[in-house]
Amino acid sequence: MSFFRSRWVEAPAGIEELDPAQLPPGFRAGGAHCGLKGGGRTDVGLLVCDAEEVASSLLLTRNASAAAPIRVCRQVVDRGGVRAAVVNSGNANAETGEQGFADALAMSAEAAKQLGLAVEQVAVAETGTIGVPLPIEAVLEGIGEAAGGLGADGGTAFSNAILTTDRWPKSCTLRAGGVTLSAQAKGAGMIEPNMATMLCFVQTDAVVEDADALLREAVDASFNRITVDGQMSTNDTVLLQASGAAGKPLPEGLLEAVLKQLAIEIVRDGEGAVRTARVEVTGAATAAEAERVSRAIANSPLVKTALFGRDPNWGRIAQAAGAALAGEDLEELGAENIEAAELGADVPEAEIGLHLDRGEHAAHVWFSDLGYDYIKLNAEYTT
Amino acid sequence: MSFFRSRWVEAPAGIEELDPAQLPPGFRAGGAHCGLKGGGRTDVGLLVCDAEEVASSLLLTRNASAAAPIRVCRQVVDRGGVRAAVVNSGNANAETGEQGFADALAMSAEAAKQLGLAVEQVAVAETGTIGVPLPIEAVLEGIGEAAGGLGADGGTAFSNAILTTDRWPKSCTLRAGGVTLSAQAKGAGMIEPNMATMLCFVQTDAVVEDADALLREAVDASFNRITVDGQMSTNDTVLLQASGAAGKPLPEGLLEAVLKQLAIEIVRDGEGAVRTARVEVTGAATAAEAERVSRAIANSPLVKTALFGRDPNWGRIAQAAGAALAGEDLEELGAENIEAAELGADVPEAEIGLHLDRGEHAAHVWFSDLGYDYIKLNAEYTT
Repeated sequence: MSFFRSRWVEAPAGIEELDPAQLPPGFRAGGAHCGLKGGGRTDVGLLVCDAEEVASSLLLTRNASAAAPIRVCRQVVDRGGVRAAVVNSGNANAETGEQGFADALAMSAEAAKQLGLAVEQVAVAETGTIGVPLPIEAVLEGIGEAAGGLGADGGTAFSNAILTTDRWPKSCTLRAGGVTLSAQAKGAGMIEPNMATMLCFVQTDAVVEDADALLREAVDASFNRITVDGQMSTNDTVLLQASGAAGKPLPEGLLEAVLKQLAIEIVRDGEGAVRTARVEVTGAATAAEAERVSRAIANSPLVKTALFGRDPNWGRIAQAAGAALAGEDLEELGAENIEAAELGADVPEAEIGLHLDRGEHAAHVWFSDLGYDYIKLNAEYTT
Repeated sequence: MSFFRSRWVEAPAGIEELDPAQLPPGFRAGGAHCGLKGGGRTDVGLLVCDAEEVASSLLLTRNASAAAPIRVCRQVVDRGGVRAAVVNSGNANAETGEQGFADALAMSAEAAKQLGLAVEQVAVAETGTIGVPLPIEAVLEGIGEAAGGLGADGGTAFSNAILTTDRWPKSCTLRAGGVTLSAQAKGAGMIEPNMATMLCFVQTDAVVEDADALLREAVDASFNRITVDGQMSTNDTVLLQASGAAGKPLPEGLLEAVLKQLAIEIVRDGEGAVRTARVEVTGAATAAEAERVSRAIANSPLVKTALFGRDPNWGRIAQAAGAALAGEDLEELGAENIEAAELGADVPEAEIGLHLDRGEHAAHVWFSDLGYDYIKLNAEYTT
């Protein structure tokens, strides 16, 4: 089993791992190079579910300064009936004004035309440089080319079409309980110019009753529990499509396990990251408090540099927690409340903990370290 | 005029700058070395106002995981009648439990004894390593030594007694409108072990009617408007003492100008900082929104690395603002709303701006860049 490699992910039993190029029955995908990325790399992708009665859900960034494709998805796309997705990598089409919106809509329209679908059935996602007009003619041509090469083994081409500065692809195809599920993600490692965009696409032939509830719950336990630098992207998108062709439900916990593994991969591949950690806060007075304190620790540059420097500095955890609880009546947090040993240990996945002794609530967050390469990636690249 | 050197500080007219060693009439200070810092450096300090009717105000960190001296100040000290302050640098006496509280109280008691005051008249402030027991006997001896050397020209000794990894002292003595005001501050540059503690002491012979209101307003416009890494310390303390001996009020705006200059010095001397910036957000719907957006920009590692890398990357400002306004209905923020040119300019103090076009409210924050030296200071030091 090579996909589920994090200590923090428990996969359901009896999973068979397939070539990630292979999509579940009823799905086809393809990619093309249109010139947004250098070196002839795949930068346009198309994905389609051939089943007419697809069950889908689409989660989008809440960033108020959202990119054009997000606005198209919000305003035009029917989130419950997404048959296809069209993507590019290399240009985020963000902060591009009315022309950007028109371009994103044109991408969706071209994909719809190629696939014989309506515009509201095609989600559009883009990632890459912001503030730069999209070379729309080249992109439309790329979409045509990708449409011409659609295949059931197009998972890898589609995965490649969303990668930017990811150091490795993040995809899988799994079989369990008589259904197949594939997923392609890209993570937070963009230097063009430095938005930590996260995209994820999931396809399955399982029967899914309430796609929104299922995806929301799995995302809450995975992508919503990670932080690289505390920055919410203008372009984040997660799409789930279920064709129902297998006539069986998804095994309990499978989607959540897949998204957790992908989320942790994104953290591992965070900008310049070399180590990953999970912080768990227990004993909080409320769920919101547990959440706030765990995020404060995960986003603290002092904790993140300690993780990078292998410094088991529990004082920084106490400080970040105390700041998050400013104004509260808190007993001094001593070493006995804090597990920081793995911050200093030579493990790739460090587990740290804080017990507040204020109540029964808990929360956890995965995060990356902060080292020289983050500065290098973000300071030495000039737009 | 060498003290007011920031482009962002407008000092009242007619100020005479004196040697910062010189305290206002009626104040005496002194320092000693007790071994908390190496190299024989001054690490214990004592400051006293000889006027019995001192008007004072004391502002303390709201960090819920506050250090022992903060707890002593909160629980024991009469903030309106602080005659003296006793300080050490090199040991924060934080996360030190009941013994730490007893030690901080012992410092206050020893200072009170030496000066013939009550414990509630003596503020105590400490800064340095956390989680390490205070060598209290040596500190008490140092307090005795400092008491023996108290003098009207003890401003520099006292200033030295609060410095940790500051690259330069932050102090001044000024005369204007028939009154004298002196101040000593230390900033956010600790590598022992990396709490960004801020301490500031202000003495004047002016008549101050409402010390709390005056200090609160000046701190709101200065120390509360800066961020180095978004971290609130366990030990932050600001003390204002006014003897009233001059029989005249403080010139309008003088205290605020002094604290602003000191606050900007602290940012300039932030951990590894090489450049300082001020971001102003205008056109916000509410004051709280202006505040939230300006702090989100100032604390964004992407904006901070752009400042370090001299990258006029307005997209990062749009992204940080959009994240702070998540869920709001916001028009896309274009280059026309954002002044980011000085992010890329070769100026030590960069001015950047964002106009939201949502209302009439504005806020600003000063912040430092994020570069290799921050990582070096915070990752390579092992506790």
